[in-house]
Amino acid sequence: MSAGATDRPIFRRIALIGLGLIAGSVAMAARASGSAGHIAGYAKSAETRAAVRDLGFCDSVHDSAAEAVAGADLVILAVPVGAMGEIAAAIGPHLGPGAIVTDVGSVKQEVIAAVAPHLPAQVHFIPGHPLAGTEHSGPRAGFASLFQNRWWLLTPLEGAEPAPTARLSAFVRSLGAQVEEMDAAHHDLVLSVTSHVPHLIAYTMVGVADHLKRVTESEVIKYSAAGFRDFTRIAASDPVMWRDVFLTNKEAVLDVLGRFTEELFVLQRAIRMGDAAQLQEYFTRTRAIRRGIIEAGQDTAAPDFGRSAALPEGAVKPSAKSDEG
Amino acid sequence: MSAGATDRPIFRRIALIGLGLIAGSVAMAARASGSAGHIAGYAKSAETRAAVRDLGFCDSVHDSAAEAVAGADLVILAVPVGAMGEIAAAIGPHLGPGAIVTDVGSVKQEVIAAVAPHLPAQVHFIPGHPLAGTEHSGPRAGFASLFQNRWWLLTPLEGAEPAPTARLSAFVRSLGAQVEEMDAAHHDLVLSVTSHVPHLIAYTMVGVADHLKRVTESEVIKYSAAGFRDFTRIAASDPVMWRDVFLTNKEAVLDVLGRFTEELFVLQRAIRMGDAAQLQEYFTRTRAIRRGIIEAGQDTAAPDFGRSAALPEGAVKPSAKSDEG
Repeated sequence: MSAGATDRPIFRRIALIGLGLIAGSVAMAARASGSAGHIAGYAKSAETRAAVRDLGFCDSVHDSAAEAVAGADLVILAVPVGAMGEIAAAIGPHLGPGAIVTDVGSVKQEVIAAVAPHLPAQVHFIPGHPLAGTEHSGPRAGFASLFQNRWWLLTPLEGAEPAPTARLSAFVRSLGAQVEEMDAAHHDLVLSVTSHVPHLIAYTMVGVADHLKRVTESEVIKYSAAGFRDFTRIAASDPVMWRDVFLTNKEAVLDVLGRFTEELFVLQRAIRMGDAAQLQEYFTRTRAIRRGIIEAGQDTAAPDFGRSAALPEGAVKPSAKSDEG
Repeated sequence: MSAGATDRPIFRRIALIGLGLIAGSVAMAARASGSAGHIAGYAKSAETRAAVRDLGFCDSVHDSAAEAVAGADLVILAVPVGAMGEIAAAIGPHLGPGAIVTDVGSVKQEVIAAVAPHLPAQVHFIPGHPLAGTEHSGPRAGFASLFQNRWWLLTPLEGAEPAPTARLSAFVRSLGAQVEEMDAAHHDLVLSVTSHVPHLIAYTMVGVADHLKRVTESEVIKYSAAGFRDFTRIAASDPVMWRDVFLTNKEAVLDVLGRFTEELFVLQRAIRMGDAAQLQEYFTRTRAIRRGIIEAGQDTAAPDFGRSAALPEGAVKPSAKSDEG
């Protein structure tokens, strides 16, 4: 077993429902740390099941979700959020008492509404969301270090028992992640600001560059500010997953989008009117916000916030990183 | 002299007008490569001049721009674009025949309009723009490797002689940059798409997060998708510089902003109406654009497009980089 491996698995038998990037990475990280005994898997597509049988990161691959969850003490729902309800209905009757069910969906309130009604009373439903991913999808995209130093958010339901949550947290940490708990509604709002609306903006900027035929796509890539270019890379993410995110986090996304476009129009008007003072005041204020965060130790000037170098979270490691102007 | 140093300076005497991040970095890179003989400097603020005298990256620091440019065969204007006209008027009468004047401003058409009228006929005005920078400013912020593998755009005027442009290009390459030439109007449009409007968006998102008191700034930083967090870092850039960029590239910025908000409203409406098909179609199309660029060899899946590893431009080095979801 590798460094950080546990003496005894945290879960005797885990079931991965959905076998894409996240599930594959969970399986590989759990194998590396020894925190899961038997890893069972299920995917809707026969082609995916065949690929996973070849790849070998599951100990058993089943042709139905019901068979996959039989005897599992941890079930991880890793299907698109739009498919969660159907899957929950299929597995509900087959879950043992005391089993923990979690998910990895990017929105929480809608997943809870879709899944919770189908789960029996003695099952512990602890929704979750790993803040990790790449622009690739499918069973071949996963890798063991995906969750290293990444946040994995858990949104336990009201009245949830502490012990199952602690056990799930320990498992998530064994995959390399850092755990944070929060209320599901707060999760959806925070993520609309930090992830969902930025992804929408990335998609939109790529669309704008595409329409603006006088600027070629390769020029957009060549000359983009480094942060922006990395940012547009996320516009290459899975369209189905993102479609479901926006359909299921509609309220928070529309809230944030509305505020965003209001602010943008204030700035657009200032630009059109040549209002130098208003522009400078706005940029000065947002710079102060941004810098205040660095000084509070919540950020570092290092690229990727030093996480690639496995710094403790919040460590300040100022280093000059050259971006494009 | 270090690797890449030339046997003989490309310019006998260079004058840096404005002594901030860019000018300081030019001086240090030129010293490292030996491509400049004497480096003279001028800054408007006495405090900056004193700091540069201490830092030592100029061989001489002058109390007026006119003195600084005397005898220079290359003059680099590195002041905010709003100050370019005034500086050009001050130095015009003191430039020798055959001197090359360039600038490093983020917009080109307005700089040309402000500067060109003040320069004598036998001076070669070759506007430029290095796509490099950090969120820091001032004379202490510069460093010699700022331009390594960065694009440095030149926008020679119509009818410009080739030899001075070739000499300036050689100098810019000696600083580590790669040179590309283009028309000034095209530059302003490309940069509005790749840099100016993205910066405005970054400022706006930080402003939105600030107003949305229910989401704390530190949560925004902790949970932001990696690309987005790096992206908001640019909202910590110099407010004066960016104010001037938007005031002087108004037409192209308003064009791109208008298109951007139109696209965004299309998506916002699709989200409000739960139009799954339209969302999926839009994301699928933009993903194809983004991936098409990688396949065309204009991009790599490596972080920072492999440039940190000094790959040849356009080399494809796919490697999995984990982002937040």
